[in-house]
Amino acid sequence: MIIVMRTDGEARDADAVKDKILDLGLEVCEAIGVNYHIIGMIGDTSSVDAESFKLMEGVEKVIHVQEPYKRVSRLFHPENSVISVNGLSIGGEKLAIIAGPCSVESKSQITEVAIEVKKAGAGFLRGGAFKPRTSPYSFQGLKEEGLEYLKYAKEVTKLPIVVELMSVDKLELYEADVDIIQIGARNMQNFDLLKAVGQTRKPVLLKRGLSATIEEFLTAAEYILAGGNENVILCERGIRTFETYTRNTLDISAVPVIKKLSHLPVIVDPSHASGIWWMVEPLAMAAVAVGADGLMIEVHNDPKNALCDGNQSVTPENFKRLMDRVREIARIHNRKL
Amino acid sequence: MIIVMRTDGEARDADAVKDKILDLGLEVCEAIGVNYHIIGMIGDTSSVDAESFKLMEGVEKVIHVQEPYKRVSRLFHPENSVISVNGLSIGGEKLAIIAGPCSVESKSQITEVAIEVKKAGAGFLRGGAFKPRTSPYSFQGLKEEGLEYLKYAKEVTKLPIVVELMSVDKLELYEADVDIIQIGARNMQNFDLLKAVGQTRKPVLLKRGLSATIEEFLTAAEYILAGGNENVILCERGIRTFETYTRNTLDISAVPVIKKLSHLPVIVDPSHASGIWWMVEPLAMAAVAVGADGLMIEVHNDPKNALCDGNQSVTPENFKRLMDRVREIARIHNRKL
Amino acid sequence: MIIVMRTDGEARDADAVKDKILDLGLEVCEAIGVNYHIIGMIGDTSSVDAESFKLMEGVEKVIHVQEPYKRVSRLFHPENSVISVNGLSIGGEKLAIIAGPCSVESKSQITEVAIEVKKAGAGFLRGGAFKPRTSPYSFQGLKEEGLEYLKYAKEVTKLPIVVELMSVDKLELYEADVDIIQIGARNMQNFDLLKAVGQTRKPVLLKRGLSATIEEFLTAAEYILAGGNENVILCERGIRTFETYTRNTLDISAVPVIKKLSHLPVIVDPSHASGIWWMVEPLAMAAVAVGADGLMIEVHNDPKNALCDGNQSVTPENFKRLMDRVREIARIHNRKL
Amino acid sequence: MIIVMRTDGEARDADAVKDKILDLGLEVCEAIGVNYHIIGMIGDTSSVDAESFKLMEGVEKVIHVQEPYKRVSRLFHPENSVISVNGLSIGGEKLAIIAGPCSVESKSQITEVAIEVKKAGAGFLRGGAFKPRTSPYSFQGLKEEGLEYLKYAKEVTKLPIVVELMSVDKLELYEADVDIIQIGARNMQNFDLLKAVGQTRKPVLLKRGLSATIEEFLTAAEYILAGGNENVILCERGIRTFETYTRNTLDISAVPVIKKLSHLPVIVDPSHASGIWWMVEPLAMAAVAVGADGLMIEVHNDPKNALCDGNQSVTPENFKRLMDRVREIARIHNRKL
Repeated sequence: MIIVMRTDGEARDADAVKDKILDLGLEVCEAIGVNYHIIGMIGDTSSVDAESFKLMEGVEKVIHVQEPYKRVSRLFHPENSVISVNGLSIGGEKLAIIAGPCSVESKSQITEVAIEVKKAGAGFLRGGAFKPRTSPYSFQGLKEEGLEYLKYAKEVTKLPIVVELMSVDKLELYEADVDIIQIGARNMQNFDLLKAVGQTRKPVLLKRGLSATIEEFLTAAEYILAGGNENVILCERGIRTFETYTRNTLDISAVPVIKKLSHLPVIVDPSHASGIWWMVEPLAMAAVAVGADGLMIEVHNDPKNALCDGNQSVTPENFKRLMDRVREIARIHNRKL
Repeated sequence: MIIVMRTDGEARDADAVKDKILDLGLEVCEAIGVNYHIIGMIGDTSSVDAESFKLMEGVEKVIHVQEPYKRVSRLFHPENSVISVNGLSIGGEKLAIIAGPCSVESKSQITEVAIEVKKAGAGFLRGGAFKPRTSPYSFQGLKEEGLEYLKYAKEVTKLPIVVELMSVDKLELYEADVDIIQIGARNMQNFDLLKAVGQTRKPVLLKRGLSATIEEFLTAAEYILAGGNENVILCERGIRTFETYTRNTLDISAVPVIKKLSHLPVIVDPSHASGIWWMVEPLAMAAVAVGADGLMIEVHNDPKNALCDGNQSVTPENFKRLMDRVREIARIHNRKL
Repeated sequence: MIIVMRTDGEARDADAVKDKILDLGLEVCEAIGVNYHIIGMIGDTSSVDAESFKLMEGVEKVIHVQEPYKRVSRLFHPENSVISVNGLSIGGEKLAIIAGPCSVESKSQITEVAIEVKKAGAGFLRGGAFKPRTSPYSFQGLKEEGLEYLKYAKEVTKLPIVVELMSVDKLELYEADVDIIQIGARNMQNFDLLKAVGQTRKPVLLKRGLSATIEEFLTAAEYILAGGNENVILCERGIRTFETYTRNTLDISAVPVIKKLSHLPVIVDPSHASGIWWMVEPLAMAAVAVGADGLMIEVHNDPKNALCDGNQSVTPENFKRLMDRVREIARIHNRKL
Repeated sequence: MIIVMRTDGEARDADAVKDKILDLGLEVCEAIGVNYHIIGMIGDTSSVDAESFKLMEGVEKVIHVQEPYKRVSRLFHPENSVISVNGLSIGGEKLAIIAGPCSVESKSQITEVAIEVKKAGAGFLRGGAFKPRTSPYSFQGLKEEGLEYLKYAKEVTKLPIVVELMSVDKLELYEADVDIIQIGARNMQNFDLLKAVGQTRKPVLLKRGLSATIEEFLTAAEYILAGGNENVILCERGIRTFETYTRNTLDISAVPVIKKLSHLPVIVDPSHASGIWWMVEPLAMAAVAVGADGLMIEVHNDPKNALCDGNQSVTPENFKRLMDRVREIARIHNRKL
């Protein structure tokens, strides 16, 4: 952290700042110029509150130099992390393809979709049991029953299952039944939920919040790693912009940026990013071209009658086609599906 | 809901849409022009999924006419709601002034601040016990101990207390000890938490999410009212914009818009909106000038040493001055502090 | 400007950075800590290109300490600037009230509105002659004819006129006929236009761009002052946010922020900020409560038949009422209308 | 356009709306339901001002059904447009690769870069002569001299040149010397400039504004086509979001959306979108994967000493590598470089 002092200030102002830094157990370094005067802090400043310096006499600005996250940072873990899920790997040479419907609607629906996506090459099955819906009057998911159907589909296909967790009180159930716990975009800063999954050792798929910066996204992931759970997969799923044609705007640049800053694997969800089924294929191709470690795709056997997100779901036929196109792109990066 | 059909479509496409509407138990009305063809649905469309129409053959667009909320709407409750809290009213002639520190730091701190803000005319005491912090390494609040100190400060001053609830498992504790349950901006769409407080009859102060539209804000409130709890106070606390000088951007227009659309009281939090103590007074004046039903102000007896948000906290002296300025504005609207 | 070096870098990297700073005629100051190494530049860095340092070996970040504007800054001109227009002042005790229709539609319309707004207390007449319209098929203004009508209305009422300039080739005409040249939001970074009005000594009313930060807004104003024209009035007119109920979102905090950073007067346009006539009055009250130096209000004698922006125009009757409410707020700040 | 009437309104309100529609020379179609009443307009509504209906008694909302653009729309021109530039095509099978430095700095610099990018396979040379810079104190370009150097580099390499035009008074010069006139992001809604280039028949490369929606972008292009110039190439160059790591955020989805809505070719500028040289290659690959018709890449022979945008410029070596990677992606879409 760097404190910029006003140049018209008093010497005792700078002294007070330096004393405060020393009181925090940190060291001081100082540089005085003609038109500015800066005081740096040396040591671990991750728990220092910048606010407390902003109010001191003579202080003009407080500038952060260090990122607010540590365990998530590539500085502390230079190699790519590879997350292991039931014998499969996420973050390695093989891309992780997670596919399935927005919501589990019936035993036959989820099983049928699971069989189809497996046939097309998906490695993981997604499906919503407890659904976060904007309106209290929308379908809220089949809940525990939905989970049971997912377990059945897993039994049939052997695909590990990825399910969104919405509250701490269901965590025990998820630990027993689910292979990857998903934390949704709206809960990216639900800190109690992050702390709770940080206490488990289950793989966690953390989605980026609707208007979160990459730094906030990584700092949310830090909550999970700080709890001791290093099995975190990050998912870019579109951010809110002024554009209204698409549901969100896929931030494709987030992939190389996150790969630069962090060792955690990053996947892309083109279904939520666009909200439009015919855009899923080109965006999936772009995601793999830019270097994503995997994809999360909504697939529904009957999108027109889906209980949720039908417009962004591709059919099993289109999913197969998408996989073929994506495979060609993956090859360019020497990666497999 | 209005379905816009492509004009180059087939007659059977429109027939399929009309059949689907009738199947939903709704009535159809239709208007065919030279360059468009629209099909309207008549009846309660609040639980109809627009997505399911978007995918039908020949459909170009689906346009929402009705708002996604009902109980929150002024259409269903033309009079202003006045929320009663321990004999005090929010939403009536008298403005609700909620003041206190970001975090409870000690028994003496919260009690001292409580006495000061009461003296200056505040009607309610705020204070954080469980804190939602962006970084896992920041001070997370005194938790249960903090609640105890708030109860003590309430005993001394008789000020009802407003405290943020972060997870469902603490709800019982809050029902017993807290007068107004605050739901923070980051939890505005934590639907499980909204449903839980909807089951109580405690007043709930719901803060607008960082990048939520007013419609989303009101639809989040609908979750609480749909559970049967009509004691909801809305709080505009600044939204995220490209501006970096202030912490957030106060959306002052939200006040008249919400008063138009809804019967619920609306208060403004200029401390979080700006993040800068010297802006709190002018923004508080603007908020009352625009018609807010109250204010939420961070006051700290020693901002320089505050454990959280010191830079946006005013001292008791400045709070007193602010109250005097705000009182003059309130008078113009025939309201009292 | 501060250069943050990587701590795992080589000594010669820092040497190269220091040499480059010295080559630019600036001085170096340096602070080396355990986990960072910073190199500061001493001297006038306003024309130094940060980009050229970012690419040097061992450089991690380049941090700006100084603002990119000078003449606009309150540091260089501590007193408030008061702009003189035909004997009237903007930025002094008396608030500047600029009122009139979006577009000049006819001689009688503009003259009638001018008489009405003058009667209600406005000090300046606004009216569009050349109109920047989103669609090429919308009414583009009466152009030169519109200017003539404005001059006639000015003759009748003695109100100075404020008219938007859209291109350099009309500047000579505006210098002769117009009292305040308005630069619209969409042209805030039309640098050639800014340079051109910077060469005149006419008062310029510069509107904030739709998604401009305050720093960008002030830096755009710097273009005008750098040309030698110090007669600049800034106008906050709403920024783009995710909210769709209002046309834009009034950034009320921009007023105290700009007053802190700059000596230039700041006025507020609640008509464009909201786009809704019934919101103009409460927002105007908020603007004066927060400390604005004036208001720009769209007034139309027949909003229902206005050729442009009818929905955000108030009638002369409503304008009179607004002026009465605003006068009460102004009194609290010891200001007059 | 659809007018939604309040259901509690009077019959004469609807009559007034219908009369107004008929007065405009349009036809009416009407649908009355239990809880809404909608009135549609039949005919060409592109010049109808929605505002004038919003203020009528009993009107609740005005909803646009038609897009505000026509000539730009794929509805009016179902085939892809292919723009011809000095015998080369943009929008056809071969991707348009435009490369070169941000600014022309000297005759040798631009010529050297031109030779290098041609060697690597670029089809067009870019270079700035008149530069739009945020600060008045930054390098503003070599102006006419820069144009001369570009012409020289063109003579040597035969690459057509793409140069940004900032004001109408230089248009004649550009018509004579430049092969593609670029309109920059900050001038996307400089309507006078759009009208002026609409009067020529020169190919125009129009960049998307920093916070423009796709609809606004296409409507800006409509200004040029409405003037009779159909030679328009659209360029996605990143939009403003809350993310600060990158300079802007590449909206990759804009490519398929624009291809769906319009017949005009779309290219992508990953250099401005990211602002970071090492991100240019992955983003270029993503852009071609998603279906872009070309790329605009900043290439500089000595980025560390570039007078502008050095940090986002790739070296000729990196450009060659980028071309090789992009070629592999293009092949998947059966396109060539």
